Amino acid sequence: MTFSPETAADLAPRILAGERRALARAITLVESGRADHRAQATALLDRLGTAKKALRIGLSGTPGVGKSTFIESFGMMLVGQGHRVAVLAVDPSSARSGGSILGDKTRMERLSREPAAFIRPSPSQAQLGGVARRTREAVSLCEAAGFDVVLIETVGVGQSETLVAEMTDLFILLMAPAGGDELQGVKRGIMEMADMILVNKADGDLKPAALRTMADYAGALRLLRRRPQDPAGFPKAVAVSALAEEGLKTAWEDMQALAAWRRAQGHFDRRRAEQARHWFETEVREGLLARLVTDPAIRARMQALGSAVAAGQTAPAVAAAEMLAALQR
Amino acid sequence: MTFSPETAADLAPRILAGERRALARAITLVESGRADHRAQATALLDRLGTAKKALRIGLSGTPGVGKSTFIESFGMMLVGQGHRVAVLAVDPSSARSGGSILGDKTRMERLSREPAAFIRPSPSQAQLGGVARRTREAVSLCEAAGFDVVLIETVGVGQSETLVAEMTDLFILLMAPAGGDELQGVKRGIMEMADMILVNKADGDLKPAALRTMADYAGALRLLRRRPQDPAGFPKAVAVSALAEEGLKTAWEDMQALAAWRRAQGHFDRRRAEQARHWFETEVREGLLARLVTDPAIRARMQALGSAVAAGQTAPAVAAAEMLAALQR
Repeated sequence: MTFSPETAADLAPRILAGERRALARAITLVESGRADHRAQATALLDRLGTAKKALRIGLSGTPGVGKSTFIESFGMMLVGQGHRVAVLAVDPSSARSGGSILGDKTRMERLSREPAAFIRPSPSQAQLGGVARRTREAVSLCEAAGFDVVLIETVGVGQSETLVAEMTDLFILLMAPAGGDELQGVKRGIMEMADMILVNKADGDLKPAALRTMADYAGALRLLRRRPQDPAGFPKAVAVSALAEEGLKTAWEDMQALAAWRRAQGHFDRRRAEQARHWFETEVREGLLARLVTDPAIRARMQALGSAVAAGQTAPAVAAAEMLAALQR
Repeated sequence: MTFSPETAADLAPRILAGERRALARAITLVESGRADHRAQATALLDRLGTAKKALRIGLSGTPGVGKSTFIESFGMMLVGQGHRVAVLAVDPSSARSGGSILGDKTRMERLSREPAAFIRPSPSQAQLGGVARRTREAVSLCEAAGFDVVLIETVGVGQSETLVAEMTDLFILLMAPAGGDELQGVKRGIMEMADMILVNKADGDLKPAALRTMADYAGALRLLRRRPQDPAGFPKAVAVSALAEEGLKTAWEDMQALAAWRRAQGHFDRRRAEQARHWFETEVREGLLARLVTDPAIRARMQALGSAVAAGQTAPAVAAAEMLAALQR
């Protein structure tokens, strides 16, 4: 795909008008690693501004808990209530495994055909850092395009959950019914990040197990220290059935109640402000380090000094001091 | 402690002459976070050069395996053979726990009184990165002071083992006798880093258990993929008794044989070269990032832009691009 220098000027009004094709194209632009694309992406984000805001919901769940079915049912319910819903994915493993969550839109057949919904698979990028930047910029683009609920889906592995929690307003864990023993499988750190635990598959034969599991998680959540950003009763565990479309409205009401309480208490805006500052600082640090490899003159100097160090001609600290002095000039 | 601008010129010849007090003072200098001390530390390392080299041995073991007793016995044996032995510690937890491994020299009473030995406790620094830099620079200082064996001790927790493996020629795991079931407690990643596993306490009542444990580890090591840097029979597991001073000579002969084989095959120098280049690059990256907080003008600009981002006046990416442009000027 090519992007002319007029890309930002062309795309901005179309995104603000809610045009999905322009939004898709803009996300491809922010996913690009090319320096000229980066400059255009920055120009585009500058033009779009930061006025429009969605409720950003992080959703984590390991394969098999019924995440696609949940997003399909939950998304359709939101659309039915008049919301515009964007679904993004953070899957740092997709580059390795070849597959990607949300890669197959047929997994959310109804939602993907819905004009008020926008679904975007995870990009095939190896680095979590790259995925992070792309995703938070994609969130901004979706907000500018008028989507008022943005779901960010992630698989329950490694650091991707922390990453998603750091770019969302609410963080939801989707779980499957399980024996009491399996409860321990959820890491304490993940439990502490969760605002709600939804136990899915509370239907048919699994319903009793789902209700037991919900009660177990509710008990575990009560043992956690009360967080200042939580009203009474949160974090909470509830049982839902994505398949039978049961419990979804109640879960959504809970999410809205939690968000409303946090807005009223100032927690919501404070968290947004902290997140924005955090991403700004991360971006500066990453950009600074990127110069070491992208600037040809700096890169050549790094390699020459690195070779001298490897050959034992100079100490690492001495060569580093020389390089840093050169960078400061 | 104060360091005059003449510190480097004063300390260098005294360190090269093997004076332990000058060495101790120089390590205090490299541990300092002050910018002027850093400049002096770099000048000192430059003066000392990189000609003298020790065998650098990383030693990891959780509390209770008899690490101090092992270092005492192993160190005394080396000194008896005419070696000069330095012992350093990497303990990222010491800042939090208040205690520090090697903090109490009485734990190695004989070795600490030995003129051919030098023992230095872990500094109280919270950041693993800071401990890393200090330790590898301390290794260089010990080498310049004529110590030909440098032991770097670490507790078997978190990332400190990887860090120590990245700055040593050989990586040794010290283990206690255990039931077969406990074997699984050793993470695969740690096993893969180990060049030798020494099962300590092969004395008295524990001897049979130690021998069984050794056999278990030997079996586990055989299941690992053969590494190009290993001759036949390595990585290997042996049983030792630090208390009874048994098996230490054999273990040392094994270490020397492994080092000699790697030297002959070119692995030794290649690894050293890679490590030196790695530390140089790490130092440049850390130095570059440090400017964001140490340079008052840059810091002020970061804070102003960060506040604008937090207030929602500008997008993180846009502010970051502005900051990066300012840094490049």
